[in-house]
Amino acid sequence: MFFASDNASGAPPEIMAALLKANAGYDRSYGGDRIMAEVTARIRQVFEAPEAAVYLVATGTVANALAIATLTPPWGAVFCHRHAHIEMDECGAPEFYTAGAKLVLVDGVHGRMTPETLSAALETTGASGVHGVQRGMLSITNVTEAGTVYTPAEIAALTAQARARGLPCHLDGARFANALVALGCTPAEMTWKAGIDAVSFGGTKNGLLGVEAVIFFDPAHAWEFELRRKRAGHLFSKHRYLSAQMLAYLTDDLWLTLAARANAMGARLGEGIAALNSAALTHPTQANMVFANWQQGGHARLQDAGAVYYDQRPLPDGRETARMVASWSTTEADVDDFITALRG
Amino acid sequence: MFFASDNASGAPPEIMAALLKANAGYDRSYGGDRIMAEVTARIRQVFEAPEAAVYLVATGTVANALAIATLTPPWGAVFCHRHAHIEMDECGAPEFYTAGAKLVLVDGVHGRMTPETLSAALETTGASGVHGVQRGMLSITNVTEAGTVYTPAEIAALTAQARARGLPCHLDGARFANALVALGCTPAEMTWKAGIDAVSFGGTKNGLLGVEAVIFFDPAHAWEFELRRKRAGHLFSKHRYLSAQMLAYLTDDLWLTLAARANAMGARLGEGIAALNSAALTHPTQANMVFANWQQGGHARLQDAGAVYYDQRPLPDGRETARMVASWSTTEADVDDFITALRG
Amino acid sequence: MFFASDNASGAPPEIMAALLKANAGYDRSYGGDRIMAEVTARIRQVFEAPEAAVYLVATGTVANALAIATLTPPWGAVFCHRHAHIEMDECGAPEFYTAGAKLVLVDGVHGRMTPETLSAALETTGASGVHGVQRGMLSITNVTEAGTVYTPAEIAALTAQARARGLPCHLDGARFANALVALGCTPAEMTWKAGIDAVSFGGTKNGLLGVEAVIFFDPAHAWEFELRRKRAGHLFSKHRYLSAQMLAYLTDDLWLTLAARANAMGARLGEGIAALNSAALTHPTQANMVFANWQQGGHARLQDAGAVYYDQRPLPDGRETARMVASWSTTEADVDDFITALRG
Amino acid sequence: MFFASDNASGAPPEIMAALLKANAGYDRSYGGDRIMAEVTARIRQVFEAPEAAVYLVATGTVANALAIATLTPPWGAVFCHRHAHIEMDECGAPEFYTAGAKLVLVDGVHGRMTPETLSAALETTGASGVHGVQRGMLSITNVTEAGTVYTPAEIAALTAQARARGLPCHLDGARFANALVALGCTPAEMTWKAGIDAVSFGGTKNGLLGVEAVIFFDPAHAWEFELRRKRAGHLFSKHRYLSAQMLAYLTDDLWLTLAARANAMGARLGEGIAALNSAALTHPTQANMVFANWQQGGHARLQDAGAVYYDQRPLPDGRETARMVASWSTTEADVDDFITALRG
Repeated sequence: MFFASDNASGAPPEIMAALLKANAGYDRSYGGDRIMAEVTARIRQVFEAPEAAVYLVATGTVANALAIATLTPPWGAVFCHRHAHIEMDECGAPEFYTAGAKLVLVDGVHGRMTPETLSAALETTGASGVHGVQRGMLSITNVTEAGTVYTPAEIAALTAQARARGLPCHLDGARFANALVALGCTPAEMTWKAGIDAVSFGGTKNGLLGVEAVIFFDPAHAWEFELRRKRAGHLFSKHRYLSAQMLAYLTDDLWLTLAARANAMGARLGEGIAALNSAALTHPTQANMVFANWQQGGHARLQDAGAVYYDQRPLPDGRETARMVASWSTTEADVDDFITALRG
Repeated sequence: MFFASDNASGAPPEIMAALLKANAGYDRSYGGDRIMAEVTARIRQVFEAPEAAVYLVATGTVANALAIATLTPPWGAVFCHRHAHIEMDECGAPEFYTAGAKLVLVDGVHGRMTPETLSAALETTGASGVHGVQRGMLSITNVTEAGTVYTPAEIAALTAQARARGLPCHLDGARFANALVALGCTPAEMTWKAGIDAVSFGGTKNGLLGVEAVIFFDPAHAWEFELRRKRAGHLFSKHRYLSAQMLAYLTDDLWLTLAARANAMGARLGEGIAALNSAALTHPTQANMVFANWQQGGHARLQDAGAVYYDQRPLPDGRETARMVASWSTTEADVDDFITALRG
Repeated sequence: MFFASDNASGAPPEIMAALLKANAGYDRSYGGDRIMAEVTARIRQVFEAPEAAVYLVATGTVANALAIATLTPPWGAVFCHRHAHIEMDECGAPEFYTAGAKLVLVDGVHGRMTPETLSAALETTGASGVHGVQRGMLSITNVTEAGTVYTPAEIAALTAQARARGLPCHLDGARFANALVALGCTPAEMTWKAGIDAVSFGGTKNGLLGVEAVIFFDPAHAWEFELRRKRAGHLFSKHRYLSAQMLAYLTDDLWLTLAARANAMGARLGEGIAALNSAALTHPTQANMVFANWQQGGHARLQDAGAVYYDQRPLPDGRETARMVASWSTTEADVDDFITALRG
Repeated sequence: MFFASDNASGAPPEIMAALLKANAGYDRSYGGDRIMAEVTARIRQVFEAPEAAVYLVATGTVANALAIATLTPPWGAVFCHRHAHIEMDECGAPEFYTAGAKLVLVDGVHGRMTPETLSAALETTGASGVHGVQRGMLSITNVTEAGTVYTPAEIAALTAQARARGLPCHLDGARFANALVALGCTPAEMTWKAGIDAVSFGGTKNGLLGVEAVIFFDPAHAWEFELRRKRAGHLFSKHRYLSAQMLAYLTDDLWLTLAARANAMGARLGEGIAALNSAALTHPTQANMVFANWQQGGHARLQDAGAVYYDQRPLPDGRETARMVASWSTTEADVDDFITALRG
């Protein structure tokens, strides 16, 4: 019953096998490995983007921060949801990598900006000439930090606001596969067809040891990104181990299979909680994350049963809100045991 | 005959086995994993430093840059050899991470600073009050970029110069094990007993997939380092995979065994080349790197034979200088075939 | 009728006379001038702070940014009001100078944080360990951007929140003299006695050509500040011209006389507007800034009469909010003409 | 006998008169003042550059650092002479403003790079792909730090090297007028006609209180520069005082008159020293700076006579090298008294 995060899971056997296979013999370092060429070709195919520039890094934080730093100057405001990962959970990595860009926080329930809230932020920022920061770029997270998803049409409605002002658009896809499976659309529909310029394409939360791809649909950004990555110490000498993971991830739809499992377990958990009188979902469950609250007695029972998840300090009515994240390795038994313990 | 770099090798079976073992089940993320506690204890023991703060990162560049940024402010000069890796091969990572510190380049043959050359640099830097950068810190590389080693006494003679001016001292140990084996001293003798405050303790070039430890003998630096690492996107969520590699590396003296093999092959290659009339070593061979030059005909024969290594543009006399690096996986046959091809 | 800003005024004759006097002969550069020693002594006396470190710079933006960068590391959150000058009007200077610190915006009507709104921000920031930015410092503006003032007790109530968490406190006193005159307290009461560690002590808006002092009550910050100032290109070679302005400003209470005039004109304007049926103050007038709104007809009449001030786009009811700033050189006739034109 | 620096002089009466005149009444702030429009037109005329973007700042350090940051990315090497002001005397301001660019130091006697030494530096930098910093830009100082000048042809020979590699070229003209007078050429010949893209056009050392212009011949850089200047706190609210100084400086050839005086006094001093048996020039005197050495007895006599200048620690033969800088206000008597005291 380990629901603390999808990054507490291990990797599926296909990934470990790929690592072992890649380990044999010598290969060129720093991204010149043979496997990386296959990864690039595969991602271009998956995204229907034959010109895309594709890079691998090891953490989601740096995927986001390097993509953002490549897309906006230090004086450019980065528009994002108030609870975006780049604002809440990266210790200021975007500010560090951009040399001091400002994140402008956009409102919206269930972790989602709306065209209206984004428009309001765009209008009040960058309106005072040289005295204020300039409008820089938009960053959208899908799956959001509240476990909800934007549809391609919703993404397009947001990017339209940004593009009308000439701003590039980034998608933080730490849980890209979970969003895709939830939406039933194609990678292209969720990204460049919806106005996205660059994607942090996550692998780690969905079963890799630590690999994320950064994809620029416009290859003009390629060389700058390479220099930024190297300068940040994020260019791996033994790069083949990253390549091997990503290639296996994209082979035989493994990435989609893993995400489908996680989402199914998320749905099962969300439905199980929603069916209880004693608990209430606080966000709709649309992918592999469940947010709900219940009385402290329920938390105590779960703790006794060995369940692991994050919860917040008690609300005035004594209820505590919890976040549970299912992963590719979550089992039906994990979910059912959780519900049983919560029900009491 | 792959001598381009020790980072073109794979990992030995012990490391892959450790990865597979660590993959089972759930574990806490972001360095809270069970294996990391063992790593910390083991490194403290190896270095006879029970208070040391120990962190893992994935590349040597970031190990150096984060250590340096933790030890010096943006206006602090970093004294290092003119050909140090931090100057030549990291695309300005130290400048990036320190927010603009200046590297002051110290002379010295065979990649080695001397107390005299360091003293000269220390004297002429930071002597103009607020108008110039201040003296910040010393960074020593062992094994040097020229394949030579500093003895503990030589390190102590350099750190004495720095410490007399109140400066902290960093050791870039990307090839720490190779130096240690070459010197036959203890890790403590090569570091804190010789005046070193922080170490980049390399693992990647000596058989890991991508793990380096950063060690601060004074734990006062710990929290700042943790924040810098996170903010740089270098804190791994699935940290256990880094821990597992490092623990296996330090188990049953694997790290020393690997380095001894690489050094032995380096020595064999160096001796083989030195014995030829047609070639000349340009630096003494003291660890696993060999530098030598010979006429272009020799290069052509080696290329035909499939040898891979770095060489520089021809000198006026037609000779080209080459760098060959042996690794843990280099075989005697690799070396002997190389010599055969070179001899012609 | 020039009410666009107090920085559109010239300098009073005492300041110009001091410049001319300081121009004679040679003097040491870079702050070693004879007049600066007098400035330091005078500011220490005025603030009852015999140990204070005192520096001069030429703009308010850099006074704030350098003070903030000296007080907080890059990962430290700077708590300030949502409409603070450092957030709205400095094009990200604090982020630039701190190498990427995050400004955390605190709510509060009429430009004023309250202990409650500050406490809420302090509680939700820095609560996730290494994953989020850390609590860094507090920055309070007095006079606020809404033309209101904090009393010393109100300042103390805010700094108490910060100090309870070990955070240093900065006062942006771009209109320090206006606040002081409005409050009738001493400089010490408004600063260190109320828990302030560093002050941007403005002179430019109150009659200087371009001089602000930065004061640290704890001189431990002195050398770091000097290096940051030099490195930013804000150390003047012919520093005597800055010193001369500041010394004249502090001589014979000139600074207080100038501020008293500006405040009196602000009050007269505020009262004049409040007495009209057609206009309404949107913030209380407590120093030299007046905020009010009225129908567009009034704006048209003022424009025809040559009045200069900032106004915002029309509200849904057709009213436009205006900001008028009085300065030391504003006359009663300026104010009365403004009211006459507005009344129509 | 104040020869410590040309920045220890005051301002000539024309400049003070212009300040007083500019002080009357209200004017728009932040560079929107009426005088600035005249300054821009005048500088475009002086430089025969009708499209140039022109900005004013208050110090030479920031003029250089902002120009450099506008011309090169953080990973771009800035090629400059080993003793350039940007390397020696700005406490790392270029590194700060560029977010960590590396200064690559070029050799050359008497403060001057040569096409050969520059070519060597260009060839060995940026030759290792993503692993090293990239070639970024060239910065030339005229008058050099050794008091020598580059002719337009010499400048063109250096910029040709840079431009062949696509690099922009900056001229640090802290003593622009002194160089121009020494060379007898036009501003255009010394700059854009010789391949220069941006100029730090100094005024402070030649009689202003503190104003330098930054000129970009390609106005494409304008908006970025404006944002960088604001963000650095170098945009003056009461900008008219900077404009007034610069306009007066450029009126009736005042700037050239002042520089001619300083150069004449430099020549007189250099000739006087050269005529002594006991002293020797260490650099040719080509503008207003004189470098020479003599025995300590001479230094003692000068000190007794009240002469002020910089000297370095004694050489092994007991001689000490001194730097004397003449300014617009240096008199023949100052020079002759100096020679008399030195002669003994």
